[in-house]
Amino acid sequence: MGEDDAHGKDRFTRVRRKPEATTGTPPGALTAPPADAAIPPTRIRVLWYDQDHCEEQESGEASICAAYAGRSGTTWIDVTGVGDPVVLQELGRTYGLHPLALEDIQNLRERPKVETYEGQKFVVFRLARISGSVSMEQVSAFLVGSTLITFQEDPIDPWEAVRTAIRGGAGRVRSAGADYLLYSLIDVALDEVFPVLEQLGDQLEDLEQAVIDNPTPETLSVIFSLKRELLMLRKTVWPEREVVLGLQQDLSGLIKDETKLYLRDAYDHAVQLMDMLETYRDLASNMLDAYLSSLSNRMNDIMKTLTIISTIFVPLTFIVGLYGMNFRYFPEIEWRYGYLFVWVVMAVVVVILFRYYRRKHWL
Amino acid sequence: MGEDDAHGKDRFTRVRRKPEATTGTPPGALTAPPADAAIPPTRIRVLWYDQDHCEEQESGEASICAAYAGRSGTTWIDVTGVGDPVVLQELGRTYGLHPLALEDIQNLRERPKVETYEGQKFVVFRLARISGSVSMEQVSAFLVGSTLITFQEDPIDPWEAVRTAIRGGAGRVRSAGADYLLYSLIDVALDEVFPVLEQLGDQLEDLEQAVIDNPTPETLSVIFSLKRELLMLRKTVWPEREVVLGLQQDLSGLIKDETKLYLRDAYDHAVQLMDMLETYRDLASNMLDAYLSSLSNRMNDIMKTLTIISTIFVPLTFIVGLYGMNFRYFPEIEWRYGYLFVWVVMAVVVVILFRYYRRKHWL
Amino acid sequence: MGEDDAHGKDRFTRVRRKPEATTGTPPGALTAPPADAAIPPTRIRVLWYDQDHCEEQESGEASICAAYAGRSGTTWIDVTGVGDPVVLQELGRTYGLHPLALEDIQNLRERPKVETYEGQKFVVFRLARISGSVSMEQVSAFLVGSTLITFQEDPIDPWEAVRTAIRGGAGRVRSAGADYLLYSLIDVALDEVFPVLEQLGDQLEDLEQAVIDNPTPETLSVIFSLKRELLMLRKTVWPEREVVLGLQQDLSGLIKDETKLYLRDAYDHAVQLMDMLETYRDLASNMLDAYLSSLSNRMNDIMKTLTIISTIFVPLTFIVGLYGMNFRYFPEIEWRYGYLFVWVVMAVVVVILFRYYRRKHWL
Amino acid sequence: MGEDDAHGKDRFTRVRRKPEATTGTPPGALTAPPADAAIPPTRIRVLWYDQDHCEEQESGEASICAAYAGRSGTTWIDVTGVGDPVVLQELGRTYGLHPLALEDIQNLRERPKVETYEGQKFVVFRLARISGSVSMEQVSAFLVGSTLITFQEDPIDPWEAVRTAIRGGAGRVRSAGADYLLYSLIDVALDEVFPVLEQLGDQLEDLEQAVIDNPTPETLSVIFSLKRELLMLRKTVWPEREVVLGLQQDLSGLIKDETKLYLRDAYDHAVQLMDMLETYRDLASNMLDAYLSSLSNRMNDIMKTLTIISTIFVPLTFIVGLYGMNFRYFPEIEWRYGYLFVWVVMAVVVVILFRYYRRKHWL
Amino acid sequence: MGEDDAHGKDRFTRVRRKPEATTGTPPGALTAPPADAAIPPTRIRVLWYDQDHCEEQESGEASICAAYAGRSGTTWIDVTGVGDPVVLQELGRTYGLHPLALEDIQNLRERPKVETYEGQKFVVFRLARISGSVSMEQVSAFLVGSTLITFQEDPIDPWEAVRTAIRGGAGRVRSAGADYLLYSLIDVALDEVFPVLEQLGDQLEDLEQAVIDNPTPETLSVIFSLKRELLMLRKTVWPEREVVLGLQQDLSGLIKDETKLYLRDAYDHAVQLMDMLETYRDLASNMLDAYLSSLSNRMNDIMKTLTIISTIFVPLTFIVGLYGMNFRYFPEIEWRYGYLFVWVVMAVVVVILFRYYRRKHWL
Repeated sequence: MGEDDAHGKDRFTRVRRKPEATTGTPPGALTAPPADAAIPPTRIRVLWYDQDHCEEQESGEASICAAYAGRSGTTWIDVTGVGDPVVLQELGRTYGLHPLALEDIQNLRERPKVETYEGQKFVVFRLARISGSVSMEQVSAFLVGSTLITFQEDPIDPWEAVRTAIRGGAGRVRSAGADYLLYSLIDVALDEVFPVLEQLGDQLEDLEQAVIDNPTPETLSVIFSLKRELLMLRKTVWPEREVVLGLQQDLSGLIKDETKLYLRDAYDHAVQLMDMLETYRDLASNMLDAYLSSLSNRMNDIMKTLTIISTIFVPLTFIVGLYGMNFRYFPEIEWRYGYLFVWVVMAVVVVILFRYYRRKHWL
Repeated sequence: MGEDDAHGKDRFTRVRRKPEATTGTPPGALTAPPADAAIPPTRIRVLWYDQDHCEEQESGEASICAAYAGRSGTTWIDVTGVGDPVVLQELGRTYGLHPLALEDIQNLRERPKVETYEGQKFVVFRLARISGSVSMEQVSAFLVGSTLITFQEDPIDPWEAVRTAIRGGAGRVRSAGADYLLYSLIDVALDEVFPVLEQLGDQLEDLEQAVIDNPTPETLSVIFSLKRELLMLRKTVWPEREVVLGLQQDLSGLIKDETKLYLRDAYDHAVQLMDMLETYRDLASNMLDAYLSSLSNRMNDIMKTLTIISTIFVPLTFIVGLYGMNFRYFPEIEWRYGYLFVWVVMAVVVVILFRYYRRKHWL
Repeated sequence: MGEDDAHGKDRFTRVRRKPEATTGTPPGALTAPPADAAIPPTRIRVLWYDQDHCEEQESGEASICAAYAGRSGTTWIDVTGVGDPVVLQELGRTYGLHPLALEDIQNLRERPKVETYEGQKFVVFRLARISGSVSMEQVSAFLVGSTLITFQEDPIDPWEAVRTAIRGGAGRVRSAGADYLLYSLIDVALDEVFPVLEQLGDQLEDLEQAVIDNPTPETLSVIFSLKRELLMLRKTVWPEREVVLGLQQDLSGLIKDETKLYLRDAYDHAVQLMDMLETYRDLASNMLDAYLSSLSNRMNDIMKTLTIISTIFVPLTFIVGLYGMNFRYFPEIEWRYGYLFVWVVMAVVVVILFRYYRRKHWL
Repeated sequence: MGEDDAHGKDRFTRVRRKPEATTGTPPGALTAPPADAAIPPTRIRVLWYDQDHCEEQESGEASICAAYAGRSGTTWIDVTGVGDPVVLQELGRTYGLHPLALEDIQNLRERPKVETYEGQKFVVFRLARISGSVSMEQVSAFLVGSTLITFQEDPIDPWEAVRTAIRGGAGRVRSAGADYLLYSLIDVALDEVFPVLEQLGDQLEDLEQAVIDNPTPETLSVIFSLKRELLMLRKTVWPEREVVLGLQQDLSGLIKDETKLYLRDAYDHAVQLMDMLETYRDLASNMLDAYLSSLSNRMNDIMKTLTIISTIFVPLTFIVGLYGMNFRYFPEIEWRYGYLFVWVVMAVVVVILFRYYRRKHWL
Repeated sequence: MGEDDAHGKDRFTRVRRKPEATTGTPPGALTAPPADAAIPPTRIRVLWYDQDHCEEQESGEASICAAYAGRSGTTWIDVTGVGDPVVLQELGRTYGLHPLALEDIQNLRERPKVETYEGQKFVVFRLARISGSVSMEQVSAFLVGSTLITFQEDPIDPWEAVRTAIRGGAGRVRSAGADYLLYSLIDVALDEVFPVLEQLGDQLEDLEQAVIDNPTPETLSVIFSLKRELLMLRKTVWPEREVVLGLQQDLSGLIKDETKLYLRDAYDHAVQLMDMLETYRDLASNMLDAYLSSLSNRMNDIMKTLTIISTIFVPLTFIVGLYGMNFRYFPEIEWRYGYLFVWVVMAVVVVILFRYYRRKHWL
């Protein structure tokens, strides 16, 4: 819970920060982490495969990648933990990665985007996760010829299923190249948003009932946190749609025509996600209107109660007060049936008011 | 009612779901239904016709289609129930259907779309129905040369009239090809939305009266459910408009120029539907504003009543309380016309307050 | 009033309806009216003119048109009442009108549009009228060479002035061709919207005063009906703007370049109408906000009154109640100036509260 | 005040009106003013200049212009008062002005626009003025070769400074042609909007204070009139932006390349005006929200006061009422310290309630 | 604080003002400051560098620039204080700066923009600063060949870090030309917005708590001032995004291809800023809704308290009033257990009302 809360709390205020001292340093420079930061150790996993073979290797050092640099087949280098500039620089040198792109890997608040440098594609996207609140992990990927290099902050592996498919040799992935692998990873990223949305949808449905039955300040803050999370998801999925479109319209030849067909499918999914997000946002806005209407309804209810009880008893209290006066010359007081008379008067008053309220649909 | 309710309840939370285990399986793979699912049996109806002849056949097996594969004239293969991967695969092999499109057939929450693969058009659209709440059934269609293959989940047949027209040989449909048949089915789908909208329009009109006469929490939840249904219809009709436009702008030669004239007509209908939907959505939003205003009006009414009665009787009660005091030395009490005097004072107070309220337009 | 009301009431729920039995009939088929429907009789007026001559003829039969089919000069065939399929079919045959367009003539809820068929333009637009509420009559027109055929539902003639101008031979209309005549009719249709808007504008101005002076539920329903009428006008004028633009950008040669200059002028008027409509819609929305604010103001007023009177008399009533207690040992009761003392206390309380309310700006 | 008020009041309801009788007259016809209308007399001022000379002439007759028709140098014909069709027709004949454009000059509610006719530019724009409320005067201009003809309704001269600059021979205006003169006039028109906006901005700032300190119904109507004026300005500046852009993108050669640089500058100013207008409209909308929130705050304040005083005195009144009962057998009444006991009870009640309200942050 | 406040207060009402007398002066003329204005003295700093050398000079006179005009390497002329037309004119002559651009430098409310004149780029952008409230300082820059001339109003130096990097010879800046220097300055300007946004984000977060816990009028005015500042930032960042895009799409050859890669990076940052701004604006709008909902909640709370206490004590007061009547013939008064009976009746009333409120979820 602690981890997630921290994510949730900071998510709107965390911005791209360069340490004060380095403002003015030339762009494209990599930043070493502050000495006292507890960065997770960098782990590099290399997965090489072609139609017939498949090899895996894992290390904390970037040096293991060099051997795969010119090799035929497809190489997938997956780097977990992006705080170590040494690893980035070594990979950058080996594969000729552009310094501006390398800098973006370290900036964990980049917007999803795709950029084309000479002979390479640089893609930034996000992995959505929900556990209590929604969190988004940034993933960067370089497509350099037949090599795909991915960078992620968090050691949780979202692509185990892709790895398993490669190892097992099932499906297209083994025979298709690195561009298809990139598509597969993005497709997983988009697919992961569906269960997140599903859960938010369930929360919306629960809310709807709560709003009508018992609108409390807590309901209100749940509505607003839902709106915030939908806003955040939208901010991610919208540019990811453009990322997929950008890859699909690639002219550099890095993306094969066959893969573009699959990207069209991924694009459809992104559009469907946007559709759902918009629908949910509309529903969440409706919810807020419903909340205010519900409060107004309750207020009317409260005021009706007050008005009915007050306006019935206020005249009655006046009447009984009237006969509590101490005038010496006060004819009714002496009457034989004065007390009865008062009750009759009060009954008449009550009946009249009841009818009035019935006519007004208040009862 | 049960069926419809279930549809209504789930409609916003149901999302594209791949079973957990298959995330990461290569895209384009068909999913066998879970063993315990009660899927309706697949039924295949083949309708073959040319200018002069017309043949019909029905079976649970896809094998009956093979005979029609190369035949001249127009073949319409209508598959009801899409849970059986065997049928899909067999049809896919016979007609060379693209695996990504086949996968989309099984995913019952696809967005309406049209896609062009080598020598084939793949179209997804929806059939709207209303019985209590609105439900939308997904229909997929392949146009492969002179063959049209349609897939639908539900065994209710919306196209009986088209079938009758083909059998009877009336109209253009017999002489025109498979592209015109596809147009006819889409036209029926669009036409079916009109009575649905009509019914929602009637509900809107009833609401309007209810909102002004007696705004209850129930009215509110009817407004919101109407807004939700209009939102859902919009989510369907909007991309269907694009589907029709996409077919109209076809460059592959699968859609004949003459059919494009008819598609233009269908496009006009889709635009008209969007117009009506937008109008209804505006009216539903107005309704909500009217609801809140109506509540405010009633609150003012309630408070006016309370204020008038309270402010008249509160001073009177004070006056009678005054003469209920037990002071030993209390001159008015001893007066001969003290009691009468009190009544005069109270009458004056009432008259003054009445005038005040009249001046304020409260009475 | 009856007629107009009926128009007004139905206007948002009337939709394109095909009789149940004919769903599935081939598009382009004309529908005979139901046997029991009271359709106004069809009337055909032919007006033929060239630079020097002008001929008029009127009949219930379409056969009178045949004579004009190939004649030089300009022929205007004006058909009132569109329920008779025989007339439509005969005209269709004589002038080669497209069946899809003929079907649209009968559908009285078409969206304004312009369509180009081989050698002919088909235009749908609307005539706005206001008498109590706003109503819109559909007009369809075919431009076939030098012949203009117009269809309208209602026997009221909006184009008498154009006819008079033709008869009198004044202005450009006699020397210009059928395309200029079409422009003239559309220009009249657009011009007719201005007085309608003017009247709605006057209603808006009256409302503004009413909203601030005395916001009643009736005011609210007038606001909403105004918003509905503006919405309806917008739904008509917006596509009419596109109709004019479509004619202006005509490539078929049916519209002469000189007429296009005039169409540009008509386009400016349509844009100006849209501008005014948007302004009025903004004002109507402001009105609604003003209404709610006005209600809130009144509520504050009401509550202030209640609060001031209540909070002054409630403590006083307590005080007089205090000395109405019957305790045997009750020192103040016995005081010589007890009664006077009570009045002094009450005066002090009133003064303090007055000052408090003055400081709060409530008095 | 009278003049301005009339402007202000009518400004949203005045629309393009053709007299009833002339509907159907051919477009492009000039309308003679109704006989009983008090039209200001037409005044024509001709200013001719080249690099070295400068001549001025003024008359009520259009005949003075003929002499300048073919002359080299730049001629500026400024017509004040546009009600006289004779003057328009004479100028139209002399300079070959298009009849449709001439008709637009008389219609004083045209939208700002630029139109190109053979060898001439026709421009409509507006001059904003503020004195109490905002008013907009229409100005039309023809650019025909080296002649600029301007038409304005109102005799107040906004371009005196331009005239002075021409007379004095200062700056570019003397050496540049009629296109630069046109730019200068439009630039003045745009510049005049800045002080208007400034004044509206000051009003907005004053309002903000008023809304928070003391929201009255008057404040509300000032907010709405501000919104209306911003709406009106927006309706004018937006198309003027397009006018400047249209002149800048001129292909006819009437606008010289050097003048286009200056028009780019004017375009920047128009964009800046739009920016400011949008900002002010946002602020005015905020103001309305602030107003409603402020009212809600006050209502809470009022209700708190009522609630605190009522709920303190209501129980006390009950208690004193209790001991005002006349039961024969009533033990407390007889107590020696009964009266003191009642005071103690009441004190306890008050203390408890105070604490309760303090805990709720109401005190 | 004083300085900042003044900035904050005026920021929406300050507009481009030409002194009255100069309206009509030819555009492109420089304005001398009013004689009594306290303008900060103009300071000119020249920084010249190439790969190997670096020279700095500072003066109050523009004459020091002349020496660098044709020299190879990169020259950066930084002018602080823009009120002195003599300096501007001298620089304008030396480097051939366009008069319209020079005029824009003096107008301190220009919109960020980029303009291309023959052989030079003119760029206007802004530096955001936050200290209490947000202020934006205007910076103008000319890129003329290998010379960059920057103008700023305020003597605070935001580019010290860039200067240091040039002096130290670190990074690309020394080897790259004046276009890269321009990019560096714009990048600093964009980077400076991030901490400003961060601080506004923190304020938003604090507000959220305040709104739910204790919504006061002060909270409201903080929300509105936040909305205003976000609006102002948006008005600046949005055109700056276009400035960067405009430089990136430069066709004049003034911006080298390599620098364009860096500008793409700056563009991404601008887009990210816009994203954050939009998110914050959405959150601020939510905040306002939350505020109103929170007020409604409190009102309900207040009214519930009033209603519960009133409706319990009002009937009780009636009852005790009843037995305070002085009728001579009043049976209950004489009862032995009359007093006890009254207490029982009152207890029953209280219990019934409690149950009623519990059922309504008010307790």
